[in-house]
Amino acid sequence: MRRHIAAAKVAHLATAGRDGRPHVVPICFVLEGDVLYFAVDAKPKRTANLKRLRNIAANPAVSVLVDHYEEDWDKLWWVRIDGTARVVASGAQAEHALDLLSARYPQYRRPRPGGPVVAVSIERMSGWSGS
Amino acid sequence: MRRHIAAAKVAHLATAGRDGRPHVVPICFVLEGDVLYFAVDAKPKRTANLKRLRNIAANPAVSVLVDHYEEDWDKLWWVRIDGTARVVASGAQAEHALDLLSARYPQYRRPRPGGPVVAVSIERMSGWSGS
Repeated sequence: MRRHIAAAKVAHLATAGRDGRPHVVPICFVLEGDVLYFAVDAKPKRTANLKRLRNIAANPAVSVLVDHYEEDWDKLWWVRIDGTARVVASGAQAEHALDLLSARYPQYRRPRPGGPVVAVSIERMSGWSGS
Repeated sequence: MRRHIAAAKVAHLATAGRDGRPHVVPICFVLEGDVLYFAVDAKPKRTANLKRLRNIAANPAVSVLVDHYEEDWDKLWWVRIDGTARVVASGAQAEHALDLLSARYPQYRRPRPGGPVVAVSIERMSGWSGS
């Protein structure tokens, strides 16, 4: 399962606000030990006041899915991480996460994401495959 | 946005239970008017007592994302549907949805999914593109 996650470039993050409404966005991420990091990129977002961050502040439970689709359904698979998220606005851990993300994604080198960074402590990893 | 959704074969569904914990799974789906349908396939699941269905029964708010990833981030896009889900266990609407799904996915013709079907009434469609 870790190998599948490590090879994937995009995952899907589900959060839910205090009102219980779920929200899902694609994320670029990096896995280090039992922590998954992702960042808010500077460029395409008009604001850092994003629903995913507001939801995490209100309710830190998150679910992250990495999956593979193709026409041969015997080859489908997914891996899901359930965990607790924390917004890391600045400091050594944020810089470390941005280093890891920039090393993994050339697109993050110019410009480097402004942050904030989100650290997801992995509590459970589950998976499924079609074959 | 509808064109992007209509062309995609897989989407990501986020639900949240009564406890507010979000949950995310990949789905195969079909769009008809303002309703998105997906089914629980008979085969790979050991049970129809799935977390996504239990969550929807407890909290019908769902979020469905269709997105595109590639190395050129100027070409990224996503479309998100927020809506209200309802489990349709049997009857004419379920059969109609299974007909639509089978027409769209050859993989659903043998065997046809056993159901249940979930109907998501679309309340909001939002999108983003990198360029």
